[in-house]
Amino acid sequence: MSQAHALPASTETRALVLEAKDRLSLRDCPIDETVGPHDVRIAIHTVGICGSDVHFYTHGAIGPFIVKAPMILGHEASGIVTEVGSDVATLKVGDRVCMEPGIPSPTAKATQLGLYNLDPDVRFWATPPVHGVLRSSVVHPAALTFKIPDNVTFAAAAMVEPLAVGVHAVTKARAAPGHVAIVIGAGPIGLVTVLAALAGGASHVFVSDLDDTKLDLARTLGAVTTVNVGREKLADVVKAATEGWGADVIYECSGSERAVAGIFEPLCPGGVLVFVGIPMSPVPYDVASAMVKEARVEHVFRYAHVFPRCVAMLASGTIDVAPLITRTFAFEDSVEAFEIAASAPKGEVKMQIVMGLDGK
Amino acid sequence: MSQAHALPASTETRALVLEAKDRLSLRDCPIDETVGPHDVRIAIHTVGICGSDVHFYTHGAIGPFIVKAPMILGHEASGIVTEVGSDVATLKVGDRVCMEPGIPSPTAKATQLGLYNLDPDVRFWATPPVHGVLRSSVVHPAALTFKIPDNVTFAAAAMVEPLAVGVHAVTKARAAPGHVAIVIGAGPIGLVTVLAALAGGASHVFVSDLDDTKLDLARTLGAVTTVNVGREKLADVVKAATEGWGADVIYECSGSERAVAGIFEPLCPGGVLVFVGIPMSPVPYDVASAMVKEARVEHVFRYAHVFPRCVAMLASGTIDVAPLITRTFAFEDSVEAFEIAASAPKGEVKMQIVMGLDGK
Amino acid sequence: MSQAHALPASTETRALVLEAKDRLSLRDCPIDETVGPHDVRIAIHTVGICGSDVHFYTHGAIGPFIVKAPMILGHEASGIVTEVGSDVATLKVGDRVCMEPGIPSPTAKATQLGLYNLDPDVRFWATPPVHGVLRSSVVHPAALTFKIPDNVTFAAAAMVEPLAVGVHAVTKARAAPGHVAIVIGAGPIGLVTVLAALAGGASHVFVSDLDDTKLDLARTLGAVTTVNVGREKLADVVKAATEGWGADVIYECSGSERAVAGIFEPLCPGGVLVFVGIPMSPVPYDVASAMVKEARVEHVFRYAHVFPRCVAMLASGTIDVAPLITRTFAFEDSVEAFEIAASAPKGEVKMQIVMGLDGK
Amino acid sequence: MSQAHALPASTETRALVLEAKDRLSLRDCPIDETVGPHDVRIAIHTVGICGSDVHFYTHGAIGPFIVKAPMILGHEASGIVTEVGSDVATLKVGDRVCMEPGIPSPTAKATQLGLYNLDPDVRFWATPPVHGVLRSSVVHPAALTFKIPDNVTFAAAAMVEPLAVGVHAVTKARAAPGHVAIVIGAGPIGLVTVLAALAGGASHVFVSDLDDTKLDLARTLGAVTTVNVGREKLADVVKAATEGWGADVIYECSGSERAVAGIFEPLCPGGVLVFVGIPMSPVPYDVASAMVKEARVEHVFRYAHVFPRCVAMLASGTIDVAPLITRTFAFEDSVEAFEIAASAPKGEVKMQIVMGLDGK
Repeated sequence: MSQAHALPASTETRALVLEAKDRLSLRDCPIDETVGPHDVRIAIHTVGICGSDVHFYTHGAIGPFIVKAPMILGHEASGIVTEVGSDVATLKVGDRVCMEPGIPSPTAKATQLGLYNLDPDVRFWATPPVHGVLRSSVVHPAALTFKIPDNVTFAAAAMVEPLAVGVHAVTKARAAPGHVAIVIGAGPIGLVTVLAALAGGASHVFVSDLDDTKLDLARTLGAVTTVNVGREKLADVVKAATEGWGADVIYECSGSERAVAGIFEPLCPGGVLVFVGIPMSPVPYDVASAMVKEARVEHVFRYAHVFPRCVAMLASGTIDVAPLITRTFAFEDSVEAFEIAASAPKGEVKMQIVMGLDGK
Repeated sequence: MSQAHALPASTETRALVLEAKDRLSLRDCPIDETVGPHDVRIAIHTVGICGSDVHFYTHGAIGPFIVKAPMILGHEASGIVTEVGSDVATLKVGDRVCMEPGIPSPTAKATQLGLYNLDPDVRFWATPPVHGVLRSSVVHPAALTFKIPDNVTFAAAAMVEPLAVGVHAVTKARAAPGHVAIVIGAGPIGLVTVLAALAGGASHVFVSDLDDTKLDLARTLGAVTTVNVGREKLADVVKAATEGWGADVIYECSGSERAVAGIFEPLCPGGVLVFVGIPMSPVPYDVASAMVKEARVEHVFRYAHVFPRCVAMLASGTIDVAPLITRTFAFEDSVEAFEIAASAPKGEVKMQIVMGLDGK
Repeated sequence: MSQAHALPASTETRALVLEAKDRLSLRDCPIDETVGPHDVRIAIHTVGICGSDVHFYTHGAIGPFIVKAPMILGHEASGIVTEVGSDVATLKVGDRVCMEPGIPSPTAKATQLGLYNLDPDVRFWATPPVHGVLRSSVVHPAALTFKIPDNVTFAAAAMVEPLAVGVHAVTKARAAPGHVAIVIGAGPIGLVTVLAALAGGASHVFVSDLDDTKLDLARTLGAVTTVNVGREKLADVVKAATEGWGADVIYECSGSERAVAGIFEPLCPGGVLVFVGIPMSPVPYDVASAMVKEARVEHVFRYAHVFPRCVAMLASGTIDVAPLITRTFAFEDSVEAFEIAASAPKGEVKMQIVMGLDGK
Repeated sequence: MSQAHALPASTETRALVLEAKDRLSLRDCPIDETVGPHDVRIAIHTVGICGSDVHFYTHGAIGPFIVKAPMILGHEASGIVTEVGSDVATLKVGDRVCMEPGIPSPTAKATQLGLYNLDPDVRFWATPPVHGVLRSSVVHPAALTFKIPDNVTFAAAAMVEPLAVGVHAVTKARAAPGHVAIVIGAGPIGLVTVLAALAGGASHVFVSDLDDTKLDLARTLGAVTTVNVGREKLADVVKAATEGWGADVIYECSGSERAVAGIFEPLCPGGVLVFVGIPMSPVPYDVASAMVKEARVEHVFRYAHVFPRCVAMLASGTIDVAPLITRTFAFEDSVEAFEIAASAPKGEVKMQIVMGLDGK
């Protein structure tokens, strides 16, 4: 997982730059990147807009990560390899690829344990002060660049990053084939978790939200029952459907404090809760109700070792992300795209920006 | 998991009786069974023919289990509840059901640990001296009788028993969503394991056999690549498809000594081998080649806690067993059905016998 | 796990009866118990006083369990078998034993899965309305009665019940040999968890509390570092000792809301938190700090399948519970014993009552 | 895990060189090693003699690893840091240390997964063509060099390498505290596995061998029962001691084909077999007997992530390796030491060579 470390070569690139909170510009931006022996250069094709990109745009910060200097946005990306480092054997020029956006320190203890996503010094695209990839090209370690087969579109490949969050959550749950799952929250992360749960062996998924538009989409994804928690109680629906036993796994994808109250109620004895959404502050957690079921609670932070499996599931048709890509913009319209994204548009799940192969 | 223990009530039932090795008769047979408080009586609808039924017919024994007295065959069954014990709350007359054929001792240590399939005193249908269910009705513990929804046919429900073997194997493998699996052997157990692996998160399954007819069927089941090991080497195919890394899980379903030689070659480092097929005698096992990959090897014996999840996957459409049911006989033709089954007919996977709802 | 179900035989027994909140009497009490085929009768020798016994005495209830009728107290017990049911092969008259106090329903789904402690219908000694065992004898299922070898005292055997809580917690943690553990809270459950952690492979245990007397005792138990959280910050001490990495496992045994604030701080990436103590109400839980470490959180409810392993560790000397037994009373003084216990006496860990072999 | 890669600096070092099969010399040997930014230089203090060192000496090869050029022997080592790379923050000159002898490729897929011991390109001391450490000093990655506290001797620290094999095996077994273990084979690896099993939660260990001298030593290590399989049957002894249930874990440390016959007999249902010893050729493996117990079989290859935990257990006194160090030689006598080791001397477990701090 080496980074470029040869002499810098200054290059002008056209990029979507977050100049400061609330201020985006599409402009030329100098980037000094040289392809090291274990790196490749990738011409960017498609970039998805993530909630975190929008949040940096509208708030200028996420927790301790504060935008102090102009930063290129974007970290959900696919593209084409245009240059290959001297020691790279796994990729060649012309390969269609998607990329894992976090580069861990190779000598960190977490990295050596295989928990590289937990390395606190990881450098992650579009997390200050690291530039993102809404630009013509990027240099990246070959070990974090994954070839996609011909039957996976660039649009789908740019969905691998968010999908990886859901697949990582399902990997952690380790549930048996035929299990029953609940996904709380039908936003983009909730929906990729629904896809991942169904692909990972759930026989049925209950999806809860307050927004019927989102729930309508969720129902199209497979063996899904939706629960509008403004009208029904999730635990009641799940218990009625499981003879009172409960669901094997709950994925909390809303980040809502209210969702955590009573969260163990629809869980079966010995079941698993996975926290995927991130509440802003501590939530009230009922230890006693978790105890009587001996619940296992897992937490996921981004993902690790998941991209190749995501690509494989897109390639085999096990997962189809197309229904989640609701709108596409040209790179020239990317400021407008972010303005729309910031308005929380009803019915949009994933909006993407297509760069064009020359990056313009 | 109590058994009937009230006063015996002698009943004549029409049954397919294995009188002795090579001798079957369809005749009236007295059965003394009374519905205890935790039992139900089930009118049998459909019964699948298992290789073990055929083996008892043609050999009179399987290992230590020897047919010493006339025994009714059949253990893959579905039916309709016709009588309900006084303490049964989960089932009612008229419920369509399938049944788990082994009744463990409730006080055995293995049973209490939840490993009830490992209780050496388990009483299993059509394993001497216990009668099977190719007869009009059977009394069975409600706890081992599972309601099936309207959209699951009796034929599919009678497939739950063999499917459970595959699902149990996949449960043991505990592989991550998007993993790559190999199934060695494309007989009935191999094919249900293919279905279970795909349902349980495999992005792709390599299936090997020597019989092209079986492999042709396997390819219809999903993201499957077949390997005729008479013409190609399994490890070569898998390594070529995985950049030399290997498959995450191998299910050995052939029971063949030859398949075990070199079995770790197509496995990835840290991968899992599950023995599902049962070789007749000890096989040559290469510890050194398992070591350099730190392989985990699991063994399954029938199944435990799997029937409800199988029913759920049939109900949700996650698994479709219909392609495996290749021929159906009326109960009156069941002796002929066994004769055909004993001839190892090309192209047959699962043959079933339909009893008729009145049990004749 | 059958219960006595033959015709009741009324017997007068001398017992410590909680007549109502704050009112104990040592008196004759009629008990109707007959030894069923899978049961044994045990003359009680030693009974430990548990915090829950004291809480029923001083509050008349624990959560939903309310003392509405006179109830015999006590559930940490050892004794001698005096009568054996007709189907019991594992025990004989004269065997020295300890007993698991909860009798699950054999047909409950949780029981069949091996999670019998999660059966909501479990009947547990000294939990209303079930009588405890501060009395001359009790009838109990043989499957929940465990023989102790000669080198284990009755006092130690009566410690198996609380010890089982700690051993169950350590079993759930599944930590590797040589790991570093933290135990929060040095009360009786905290201290048995220290013993269990050390026996279960911890190379070192950090124990935190506010009470120096308890911490002084903790330090005598093995490779233990104590932290008085009134004077030092637990996370600081642990991080300094682990080069900033943190502990592999944290056992929360205090039930204190304050202990949960910042609880993930001294945990290592990929570490485990086990909730053993039961906070009275929901606690503030910082999902974000659990996420960046991908913490696994386990919850334990009593124990399951643990008694034989506890007995084995006492027998082999792997665990020595003697330092935790700080005071012993005669049965005739048991009301006084409870009065002392209710006063939260400084320096006492486990107080026990010795019945005498004739139960008087 | 970087290696020295600056300009080579030729240095003469005194070393024990295996010139070719059967030919050892203690002589000056040129070594070109420079301390890279992530490396340290270590003055070697103590080196243990491993069976593999002796096997290279007497056979000139182990499997595919053939001694084609003079090679320094030795890989179980402790020493003192004498030089520190520019980027090393975890170690300083004067630190007493032990070293993990295998350097994996940082970009290998196995390494990135945390399975670095399975990287086929790992460079391992004293495995051709890589030099070992029976010499005055070595340059090594700081990430594979572990500080030892003052209360751990250099002799004990040089035992960390073989101990790590046992601790890794016990880590893989994941057995619950209080479990019963069997160790087959009481050679050095069998004995470190006994120590690791006892430290890792075994309440009792059964050790089998044909050599009473080895078994006598095994009995001194803790709660151990020995079985001379020339006189008794292992399965009989274990079953008698466990009421017929069997042991939870079996560690096969003999590498003997004969030990594998019937190896599942003393195992409990749901138990684990760990292969630690390496049989020379495939062994007869009884799948059927593994199946009826649903045995899990694990294989270990050296170790990964184990050294810090081994050091912690030596430091806390959880493990005492002193009884296994049966003889110590001066470096000047190292040729003689190998001659003695090659004679399979009765009663010796681990022989070590002390270099002297100046490496002579």
